[in-house]
Amino acid sequence: MGAAEGCGSSRRIALLLEYDGTAYRGSQYQQNGPSIQAVLEAAINNLTRETARVAFAGRTDAGVHALGQVAAFDTNSTLGVREVVRGLNHFLPADVVVVSGRSAETRFDPRREAKQRAYRYRISNRSQRLALDRDRAWQVAKPLAVEAMAEAAAMLEGKHDFAAFSPPTDKLTARTLRRCEVSGQTGVEVTVEMEAEAFLPHQVRRTVGPLVEVGVGRMTVDELRRILEAAVPSSAQPAAPTHGLYLVRVEYDGFAFEPEEREEGE
Amino acid sequence: MGAAEGCGSSRRIALLLEYDGTAYRGSQYQQNGPSIQAVLEAAINNLTRETARVAFAGRTDAGVHALGQVAAFDTNSTLGVREVVRGLNHFLPADVVVVSGRSAETRFDPRREAKQRAYRYRISNRSQRLALDRDRAWQVAKPLAVEAMAEAAAMLEGKHDFAAFSPPTDKLTARTLRRCEVSGQTGVEVTVEMEAEAFLPHQVRRTVGPLVEVGVGRMTVDELRRILEAAVPSSAQPAAPTHGLYLVRVEYDGFAFEPEEREEGE
Repeated sequence: MGAAEGCGSSRRIALLLEYDGTAYRGSQYQQNGPSIQAVLEAAINNLTRETARVAFAGRTDAGVHALGQVAAFDTNSTLGVREVVRGLNHFLPADVVVVSGRSAETRFDPRREAKQRAYRYRISNRSQRLALDRDRAWQVAKPLAVEAMAEAAAMLEGKHDFAAFSPPTDKLTARTLRRCEVSGQTGVEVTVEMEAEAFLPHQVRRTVGPLVEVGVGRMTVDELRRILEAAVPSSAQPAAPTHGLYLVRVEYDGFAFEPEEREEGE
Repeated sequence: MGAAEGCGSSRRIALLLEYDGTAYRGSQYQQNGPSIQAVLEAAINNLTRETARVAFAGRTDAGVHALGQVAAFDTNSTLGVREVVRGLNHFLPADVVVVSGRSAETRFDPRREAKQRAYRYRISNRSQRLALDRDRAWQVAKPLAVEAMAEAAAMLEGKHDFAAFSPPTDKLTARTLRRCEVSGQTGVEVTVEMEAEAFLPHQVRRTVGPLVEVGVGRMTVDELRRILEAAVPSSAQPAAPTHGLYLVRVEYDGFAFEPEEREEGE
């Protein structure tokens, strides 16, 4: 993270962010379109007149939403955390909000120190397209066999080489999937919840896509197991679309956001 | 309802509609802005080349959403119901969708024959504004006493003169509120569900507003009871904003939409 300008004593502030990713090219700064980083850095500049660089706990792709993204930045501002939260929310667009804020150690790195990340994927299981949730869930028309999906999800839990669920990479692709759970009701809504210390790029969407293949009967649990075991990069297909995915929560050792402070009056 | 043009044998089709009311001035045709009626009649015209007049089960105000609005129109088209649904969804904008359709008696009147209407009102009980649900729920910052709200809601159930919960009108204001239930969790989300054969104009929002007054401690259940009993028009204040309100379901005697027909393939 870049240091804030100026010669005052710099401090680091951590933010809990919620956003609707529909209008953004993703969390990180993009040359060719709006990003969460750009609007957040602009809001910080509007509030503090400083040029800050924001770091995020997790990279989210274009269209992916966040209920609990964590961000951090440095500032020389003497504003209290509550004033920072209120001020940023004044300058941020309607589809991005700081839910909570707190002071952090100046070494706090929201990405490296994250001990657990939780994602949710929402599937609306119905014939017709979605009006209210059109940017909030993946509409799947064929009836989903929820139990078969849950069996496949349970098979994926634990420590595996998840190369099949990632684009090709030079890095290690072993991860421990602490939770992969399917819940919901055929013909209504089906939700996939996944938790791990760290995920491979696109891992959640490249898991949900094959789980839906199992749900509609185009793939068996055994076939998915063989794809996992063969560990051929990108072989778990298709990737589910971005707009059903939510970064729900990021957890740290000994660092949490306070339960919301309440304002007096609405 | 106007008869369809042409000299073929006219028939009536009933539609189950979902819409995001954010971009609309309401369900009914408005001179000065988009309406659900206008986009639906335009879609029917695009599909059938007929000028149809659509009738709705319930009038929804600007910004109010529907999960289960019922509409009906007449047509000479020989298209099957499934083709009508598919064709209308092709021509309708992304924020309006026909979830299901069926043939109806040519005398079927979706408004007059409705035996029960169900509304839901979503309240997000947190300090900061909403990014994902900014057009989908009412954000209330002060902690809501859910039990007090539930007690007030129960007090409103049954047959009463609901004049206080309606603008001034020459018509009768007695209604039977079959269900008025508050559920949810303080600091998270609170939902109000209301069911009646018929509601007064704005009755749901003029009920939810005072229930929130009870929830934040600005009104007691007894004070709300006295407002109900005094029956002074418009005295139940404030009205909750439109964007948290959903028309969930309309029920008829001996008339229902089939469980969705499934397409083969997604």
